[in-house]
Amino acid sequence: MKKIILKSILLLFLLANTVFATDPLPSWNDTAPKKAIIAFVEKVTKAGSQDFVPIEERIATFDNDGTLWSERPLPFQCAFIFDRIKNLFSQHPEWKNTEPFASVLKGDMNSEPGNINGADKDLIAMVLATQSGITTDEYEKAVMDWIAVAKHPKTNRLYTDMTLQPMLELLEYLHANEFKTFIVSGGSSDFMRPWAEKVYGIPPEQVIGSSIKTKFEIRNGKPVIVSISELNSMTAGNGKPLAIQSHIGRRPIASFGNSDNDLPMMQWTSAGSGVSFCLYVHHDDGKREWAYDRKFMDPFDKGLDEALAKGWTVVSMKDDWKIIHPVEKK
Amino acid sequence: MKKIILKSILLLFLLANTVFATDPLPSWNDTAPKKAIIAFVEKVTKAGSQDFVPIEERIATFDNDGTLWSERPLPFQCAFIFDRIKNLFSQHPEWKNTEPFASVLKGDMNSEPGNINGADKDLIAMVLATQSGITTDEYEKAVMDWIAVAKHPKTNRLYTDMTLQPMLELLEYLHANEFKTFIVSGGSSDFMRPWAEKVYGIPPEQVIGSSIKTKFEIRNGKPVIVSISELNSMTAGNGKPLAIQSHIGRRPIASFGNSDNDLPMMQWTSAGSGVSFCLYVHHDDGKREWAYDRKFMDPFDKGLDEALAKGWTVVSMKDDWKIIHPVEKK
Repeated sequence: MKKIILKSILLLFLLANTVFATDPLPSWNDTAPKKAIIAFVEKVTKAGSQDFVPIEERIATFDNDGTLWSERPLPFQCAFIFDRIKNLFSQHPEWKNTEPFASVLKGDMNSEPGNINGADKDLIAMVLATQSGITTDEYEKAVMDWIAVAKHPKTNRLYTDMTLQPMLELLEYLHANEFKTFIVSGGSSDFMRPWAEKVYGIPPEQVIGSSIKTKFEIRNGKPVIVSISELNSMTAGNGKPLAIQSHIGRRPIASFGNSDNDLPMMQWTSAGSGVSFCLYVHHDDGKREWAYDRKFMDPFDKGLDEALAKGWTVVSMKDDWKIIHPVEKK
Repeated sequence: MKKIILKSILLLFLLANTVFATDPLPSWNDTAPKKAIIAFVEKVTKAGSQDFVPIEERIATFDNDGTLWSERPLPFQCAFIFDRIKNLFSQHPEWKNTEPFASVLKGDMNSEPGNINGADKDLIAMVLATQSGITTDEYEKAVMDWIAVAKHPKTNRLYTDMTLQPMLELLEYLHANEFKTFIVSGGSSDFMRPWAEKVYGIPPEQVIGSSIKTKFEIRNGKPVIVSISELNSMTAGNGKPLAIQSHIGRRPIASFGNSDNDLPMMQWTSAGSGVSFCLYVHHDDGKREWAYDRKFMDPFDKGLDEALAKGWTVVSMKDDWKIIHPVEKK
């Protein structure tokens, strides 16, 4: 009984804290995007509001690369894959003369990943070569070992310190308002899941990414799941709403992205029967981060036009965010 | 502030109610299975217990057909598919002379579904024929329209009244103890999701089933997801642990099933590093339900042997359950 009372007091405190907190989004300037986010959250959570949405329908979907963390000079999973190719080279001497492995080993791929968010053949070949044949447990360990120490080539920071601080606050704000958040990314779910819960507060079952096929077998009396060299799904572009339907089975009421690859997800979200919210992060801050859009290999072009035409929220990193990465916090 | 206090008082009441409730599983006899369930839940939820499991890791996976609801004379999704074939016949006159449709139209399939939980070709052909080409919204409506009125051929009850009452209580007990429950079934996720939340308290994103492929397109300016005539995944047998890994990305600590098709899921669950719980429902009550096991088309044979060998919990419906279906409640 004591435990119950303590738990309730704690909850009371937490709830009060949420209500009286002065600013749920301290790294956002008081410009239109922040106002739009707060107005949306308040109208769908306020009991009695005509736009009220029951808790179980408060589904929000987020792209990862360029939306929750930076993605330059190339999406961070590429750096992991390149490091893995270098590590596995001794077991694959044939890679010295086989593309795309030869270019990676020479360091030629470091600034030119190709269209990694699309169905880029080279990247798929590299994922299959570096992930198949091993168990899911072994792969998870490889990801965790890498992410704990690998450094970004420009900032020399851990990749998990290259998250976008205003977006972390947005996730926290949505969680406090009982939204269920999902990542829907072209990156591999097996690459994101091991650290997403700690970094974003998003549990593995809410991380949806591209995947390769697997098989179940008993090895030395112990059941294992082993990746095989065949693509299962690509969750980019049109693959995003399909993955949402297949995995979540319920239409999101809010979606967040930064490129044309997120456009079908936003179209799907905004075509729901009730109120919805779509937000694009526009990387326009060459000083504090990177500036790129219509001409980038993973362009923000049709998405930008449609966002402007439909009145979706477009965040200018330059104008709407006080800081970019967590390290800038005072 | 008033709302917060009210919410806390309500929570206090709910928590107190949970703690002081005399019996969380009233339809279970006080035999070994009930004791084993309660002992397991208590040891993984009690703070300070050496087997304590944090809330986010309390993942429990359930088979559906034969585990959460009955499955005789044939799994209920078959009845839905057969009814759909009859309804769609006017648009498919060729079915009159094409198997398996011709047999369904003649009523010959009603007691012989074949090995529907395996990769039964006939059943897949029927799913593809009755689901492809229509949008996910249209299919959901068809399921909801059917499940609201279709009656079981023997009991003349709604199929949603053919759930297993002791298992509903078990779900509720696990939810009260902050387990996240998932359905992992050979049936179609699109068939289960529309009603699983209301009937089982399991939201669509926690319902994992077999699926066919889909495409995203814009029809008359409106985005739609359309099913296409190609199998995507079969979540039976070895497909169950694979679906668990792909969808949840975390190993369950408890699994519940009733046939050999659930065995790989239980092997995967019980091979985790911590404490785990596996429970098989044994349909041995020919009087109140149906009695079948080793010789059934979807046999409980190897699973029964392994359960006995490993000391997993095997529920005798005859001996361990006071009632079977909700209608028997006093």
